[in-house]
Amino acid sequence: MIDPTTIEAQNAARAADLAADYEALGARLARRGLSIDAIKAKVAAYHVAVPSWGVGTGGTRFARFPGPGEPRGIFDKLDDCAVIHQLTRATPTVSLHIPWDKAPAADLVAKAGQTGLAFDAMNSNTFQDSPGQSLSYKHGSLSNPSAEIRAQAVAHNIECIEIGRAIGSRALTVWVGDGSNFPGQTDLSRQFDRYLCAMAEIYAALPDDWRLFTEHKIFEPAFYSTVVQDWGTNLMIAQELGPKAHCLVDLGHHAPTVNIEMIVARLIRAGRLGGFHFNDSKYGDDDLDTGAIDPFRLFLVFNELVEAEGRPGFDPAHMLDQSHNVTDPIESLMLSASDVRRAYAQALLVDRESLRGHQDAGDALMAAQCLREAFRTDVEPILAMARSEAGGAIDPLATYRASGYRAQVAAERPAVSGAGGGIV
Amino acid sequence: MIDPTTIEAQNAARAADLAADYEALGARLARRGLSIDAIKAKVAAYHVAVPSWGVGTGGTRFARFPGPGEPRGIFDKLDDCAVIHQLTRATPTVSLHIPWDKAPAADLVAKAGQTGLAFDAMNSNTFQDSPGQSLSYKHGSLSNPSAEIRAQAVAHNIECIEIGRAIGSRALTVWVGDGSNFPGQTDLSRQFDRYLCAMAEIYAALPDDWRLFTEHKIFEPAFYSTVVQDWGTNLMIAQELGPKAHCLVDLGHHAPTVNIEMIVARLIRAGRLGGFHFNDSKYGDDDLDTGAIDPFRLFLVFNELVEAEGRPGFDPAHMLDQSHNVTDPIESLMLSASDVRRAYAQALLVDRESLRGHQDAGDALMAAQCLREAFRTDVEPILAMARSEAGGAIDPLATYRASGYRAQVAAERPAVSGAGGGIV
Amino acid sequence: MIDPTTIEAQNAARAADLAADYEALGARLARRGLSIDAIKAKVAAYHVAVPSWGVGTGGTRFARFPGPGEPRGIFDKLDDCAVIHQLTRATPTVSLHIPWDKAPAADLVAKAGQTGLAFDAMNSNTFQDSPGQSLSYKHGSLSNPSAEIRAQAVAHNIECIEIGRAIGSRALTVWVGDGSNFPGQTDLSRQFDRYLCAMAEIYAALPDDWRLFTEHKIFEPAFYSTVVQDWGTNLMIAQELGPKAHCLVDLGHHAPTVNIEMIVARLIRAGRLGGFHFNDSKYGDDDLDTGAIDPFRLFLVFNELVEAEGRPGFDPAHMLDQSHNVTDPIESLMLSASDVRRAYAQALLVDRESLRGHQDAGDALMAAQCLREAFRTDVEPILAMARSEAGGAIDPLATYRASGYRAQVAAERPAVSGAGGGIV
Amino acid sequence: MIDPTTIEAQNAARAADLAADYEALGARLARRGLSIDAIKAKVAAYHVAVPSWGVGTGGTRFARFPGPGEPRGIFDKLDDCAVIHQLTRATPTVSLHIPWDKAPAADLVAKAGQTGLAFDAMNSNTFQDSPGQSLSYKHGSLSNPSAEIRAQAVAHNIECIEIGRAIGSRALTVWVGDGSNFPGQTDLSRQFDRYLCAMAEIYAALPDDWRLFTEHKIFEPAFYSTVVQDWGTNLMIAQELGPKAHCLVDLGHHAPTVNIEMIVARLIRAGRLGGFHFNDSKYGDDDLDTGAIDPFRLFLVFNELVEAEGRPGFDPAHMLDQSHNVTDPIESLMLSASDVRRAYAQALLVDRESLRGHQDAGDALMAAQCLREAFRTDVEPILAMARSEAGGAIDPLATYRASGYRAQVAAERPAVSGAGGGIV
Repeated sequence: MIDPTTIEAQNAARAADLAADYEALGARLARRGLSIDAIKAKVAAYHVAVPSWGVGTGGTRFARFPGPGEPRGIFDKLDDCAVIHQLTRATPTVSLHIPWDKAPAADLVAKAGQTGLAFDAMNSNTFQDSPGQSLSYKHGSLSNPSAEIRAQAVAHNIECIEIGRAIGSRALTVWVGDGSNFPGQTDLSRQFDRYLCAMAEIYAALPDDWRLFTEHKIFEPAFYSTVVQDWGTNLMIAQELGPKAHCLVDLGHHAPTVNIEMIVARLIRAGRLGGFHFNDSKYGDDDLDTGAIDPFRLFLVFNELVEAEGRPGFDPAHMLDQSHNVTDPIESLMLSASDVRRAYAQALLVDRESLRGHQDAGDALMAAQCLREAFRTDVEPILAMARSEAGGAIDPLATYRASGYRAQVAAERPAVSGAGGGIV
Repeated sequence: MIDPTTIEAQNAARAADLAADYEALGARLARRGLSIDAIKAKVAAYHVAVPSWGVGTGGTRFARFPGPGEPRGIFDKLDDCAVIHQLTRATPTVSLHIPWDKAPAADLVAKAGQTGLAFDAMNSNTFQDSPGQSLSYKHGSLSNPSAEIRAQAVAHNIECIEIGRAIGSRALTVWVGDGSNFPGQTDLSRQFDRYLCAMAEIYAALPDDWRLFTEHKIFEPAFYSTVVQDWGTNLMIAQELGPKAHCLVDLGHHAPTVNIEMIVARLIRAGRLGGFHFNDSKYGDDDLDTGAIDPFRLFLVFNELVEAEGRPGFDPAHMLDQSHNVTDPIESLMLSASDVRRAYAQALLVDRESLRGHQDAGDALMAAQCLREAFRTDVEPILAMARSEAGGAIDPLATYRASGYRAQVAAERPAVSGAGGGIV
Repeated sequence: MIDPTTIEAQNAARAADLAADYEALGARLARRGLSIDAIKAKVAAYHVAVPSWGVGTGGTRFARFPGPGEPRGIFDKLDDCAVIHQLTRATPTVSLHIPWDKAPAADLVAKAGQTGLAFDAMNSNTFQDSPGQSLSYKHGSLSNPSAEIRAQAVAHNIECIEIGRAIGSRALTVWVGDGSNFPGQTDLSRQFDRYLCAMAEIYAALPDDWRLFTEHKIFEPAFYSTVVQDWGTNLMIAQELGPKAHCLVDLGHHAPTVNIEMIVARLIRAGRLGGFHFNDSKYGDDDLDTGAIDPFRLFLVFNELVEAEGRPGFDPAHMLDQSHNVTDPIESLMLSASDVRRAYAQALLVDRESLRGHQDAGDALMAAQCLREAFRTDVEPILAMARSEAGGAIDPLATYRASGYRAQVAAERPAVSGAGGGIV
Repeated sequence: MIDPTTIEAQNAARAADLAADYEALGARLARRGLSIDAIKAKVAAYHVAVPSWGVGTGGTRFARFPGPGEPRGIFDKLDDCAVIHQLTRATPTVSLHIPWDKAPAADLVAKAGQTGLAFDAMNSNTFQDSPGQSLSYKHGSLSNPSAEIRAQAVAHNIECIEIGRAIGSRALTVWVGDGSNFPGQTDLSRQFDRYLCAMAEIYAALPDDWRLFTEHKIFEPAFYSTVVQDWGTNLMIAQELGPKAHCLVDLGHHAPTVNIEMIVARLIRAGRLGGFHFNDSKYGDDDLDTGAIDPFRLFLVFNELVEAEGRPGFDPAHMLDQSHNVTDPIESLMLSASDVRRAYAQALLVDRESLRGHQDAGDALMAAQCLREAFRTDVEPILAMARSEAGGAIDPLATYRASGYRAQVAAERPAVSGAGGGIV
């Protein structure tokens, strides 16, 4: 982790400007009847999980270009995650991926204790063939025509639950790549039935206080059909499995032009919004940094979440899920954690009473302005103050670079050479 | 209607070639273990409804370019529909749109009797302000914030049911344009709640032997959000309303790249597939002739339907819903009725036992070939023979042109001048 | 126009807050090495044209819902445009559409003089059949197979040039709906050749100091192919016609997910960027208020324009082109004019020297941050100060509402009843 | 290669049925005024290249699932390619990818001689870091800000030309993944300038009788911008480089809903259509088997090619470019070669004189029918007869399976274990 004196020194150089900016913004918000301190308090209490795999450099099917200091395993990954939380104070939990992060539970718990982190949802992996695995998922996993292969995939998910119980997790996230590349390759109905049967076995193994998150995705790695292709299918799954089953929304898993915030609103109404995998995308499941492509869309999602705050049973899980192909993953995750908080803060600024008045009066323009004015408010001083007061960095990026952390781990961790992706 | 001797003369000129083609195809299918006569019988029993509004020239928001002989009202429209059925023997029912087609029930029934037609689902219209209407739907109809406006829209739908009862219809189709053009303009959740409440009132007025079809659409006329935007929302509606409520799938109402046949499969599994509005599209709700843009996609939809044939309660309604902007609407509807039958015939050719074998064996290539070989079989001789044996035309298009029907009605019906669309 | 004392009174109530906000923002920008006054000066000098047709309520093919005080003709429209400019000081020119706005040139010039407006690009209309027109554009206009129809369309465009010369315009914008609804309906190559020949005749009639803008669009009103479907075809047209021909970019005329700012960059490099029709869209050519759906995308377009500022010959035309279906068109146009200026102001904040340094160093994250920080700066105080100093309104919307202008014109102009769009 | 007696035996079992089908189809075509033999002759003369990398199992960024008998290198790949050509008689040439296929030229030429194959276009690879490469392409290759990296990429391309000269190739295909993942990461204009400069150096090294093909792609592996993102940019490149430069169209490289056949028509008119990478896709660059998703679209592309046949200088290159993730690559390539020929045969059936008549008469429906009737003709007997007469297999798939080739090479070539894609 980073030497606290580095953080203090970096903060000291920025404290006066921050105080001035915070005060100016506070005055402006006060004119709108808003308390900047109240918003800051809500922002400070908002956390988002980071995925263990996010701290490694990602790639495409064409290539992967590793950076210096790639983590060698889960313990290195937890070190990197700890830095992210240390500077942002926004990411106290880490989500593990099995078997990538398999390790003795006691060691994981001990490491978490040392780094001040806890464990978020567990993630199973049946979209790859893992070393030592007896049967292949080439033609599907939980929906495979073969009962043996389905059983193997179910057993793996149950193992993930068991690992999770041992380390304090409370949720299992299931994403499968099952589907087909050609019309006819699978029977769309029978494949879904097999998936549901397998999921029912996993659900049966779920502890009472756990939640099961299923994730839909329109395409990739299957290119004609995907068994859980959209939120409609995802909702059917949750309804079939039971009350502990909820739908996870990954922002990059939808068809072009789809209105994602409407899906969020619908799942909230159905009582089945499990949570989010945050990232951004322009074309497909691009897995870019959250808010990098369409920050207004991210704000609109949070507008729905703030609208639903306080409803009974409303408690979605929040996680970043990005592929960092050309940036330092720690930097991207720190900024994305900030950008999620930014969208939340902006959504908190919306004057909901006025908004409803305009909506009910058919004043489309003023209603739209309510959201647009909230969105274009620069809430960075609120975010920075919340970090600073919690012991984090006013400017996490500058502080991280000043710390020399990347160079330090690059010296300890062996260099990884570039390699092709899936195409060869 | 067209003089039967015209049909006979036209058929006579084509009968020998048809017999030869039918025999050659029969021999080829026999080699695959298929009986051409059995397939022909199923095709002959397959019908698709035509929409009354489809026989008039359609337009865009930019312009409408009427053709000669535009129908002046519902009775002219029924004449045109009768010609379509006379030549194709595939379209015995007509779907009415209220208030466009409002007329004394007795007159409608009498006209239907004369033309040999019956009435399919009723369609309400709350996406326009009709002459004499007291309150405007500018800001929504069934989901409008105003209780008075919602009540007006509900009453209109109930009136549609009443008209339908008087003329022998058994279903109501509800499509609304409600939504919003700007983020914030409506509360996505409250708007949906209002829609559901209004629909519950309509549902309560539904006779026991009727079905209620709700139709989803991603966009247009609303350009940011639409209250029934996709099949997921549509399914929630059906689940909320009750067992008589089903989801209607219009092939042009989905986001780009969406796999429509999967939606069909899912709705079948949910027991909520109400039926179809057939057309084709490349970009949005283009409302082009069925099969004109992607005939393989149409086949894949029918592949799901044939797969589900015979399941308890499986009885989807089939209707064409197209906008004929540059063709003679009668010609387009005749060909589209044929093309729907074509897709059905091709789907009947699939060897389902082999298909399942390949699917279960993970033989993606052979499974895909099962569908592709069925699709590329030229089943025109089957369609033509089914028409001919039922008293229709071997070649409906040539026969229609030979009949002079369009010139005849153009002489009777006054010319309509071109006009702008919605933009001015 | 609006009584200046209304503007003064409204501004007086907001002046102190504006001064404080402007000062606070100025201090913050000064820290980044930026002069707020210099940016304000550039913003104040930035203007965007309004389309005459934009001040009427728009519609879709399904319906049009007029509002109170719809303009009865071009002179009412110019009154409305004058109000927009009076309050925003951003829209000194109006773009006319022929034949919609046809009127004696002297009267147009006189009215412009009275209202303080001038005339921007002329727009021809061959996508509708106008009353009295002898030949129909149902099957195309400038690319129609019929030489007579093409000649009629060419003559109409030349008439537009002549009207434009008489009223001080310096550009002709040509957008056609020509294309096809079905594969095979037109020969894609021969249709394009015909279009090019017709355009060459129009080009030949263009005065030396005029520019010709051609506009591409992926679809609508044609739903299979459009003769000028994308910027590649548009570029070929400009190259074929000559140096006065340039490509116009309408933000809503592209395929889903297309990177519009790249197109802008490419057309700049080719020396053929004619200008913009600003609006916003989520699905198709939605013609929503500029920046309403994706404000970051608008900013990225302006980022390219600021990057290119000062290059020899770089002088794109800027116009709003929106359809106001659910808002008061004057209000939408005022806000959109502001939002275009907002994007320009934000783009001016980008530290281009730093940006290039990060780009050349492969520091993707810092480069991206350069743009994101500029975008999230709330530049409203700059826009308001620029308006206020030019005699406009600090808050155009509140001032407009306070003025009672809409009620006043609604009293003078007869109510228009709702009507169907193109579908019936 | 496969024992000729296997082919003979397989053909013998199918010859009678083929003769009957060919005769029946011939009679039907004769009625339309078409000679089946003339069409067969054109089909037999039509060839499509296969890519060396296509015979290995492909993958995604998530995983790759190898099959039995994966080729160990270029010589195994050429063996597999030889089988494809032996059975289909449609694929006499192979396209190499450097450095994947690097080998002594004399050995390559010798192997080609033994297998009866020749070499098609050369493909360079600067989208991966190859073992031993000194500088990384992480931030771009031909458009990298670093002159050294660009020089390395240029040198690699020139090496590809040299290898190609030694083995009889006559074209270089350049596809780069260069672009950016975030707005601001690169300067869109300067990056394109750098690309053009680098390409000019490659162009200068091109022998006089060679062609240079550049390939556009909307996204992947770059997820915000791609330097050659569409055909418009591709055309600018060809215009800038010179007459030997042409644009390559990969069917899967476009934005959703884009009309690809229009792009083909435009590039033909510009004299810059270099050729094709055939495959099919539903969502992105899915690289599925040609014609598997939208066979009508493939037909429409060939309709443009047949329309342009015989124009001076019209000579596009045809190649398959697919990723075979779930099928035996040899089987997919054989069927795709057939499907390309199928689309060509169908396009040859179009009655172009009638088509033009309908087009010029504004008879949209009959024009569309001309294409649709050609498309739905089952031309399999023509394809099979062409293969059979050339010594290939009437049914390549059944013959291949009967031959036991895959089992045989699986016994010789070591098994490859599954592995993750680019994400870990």
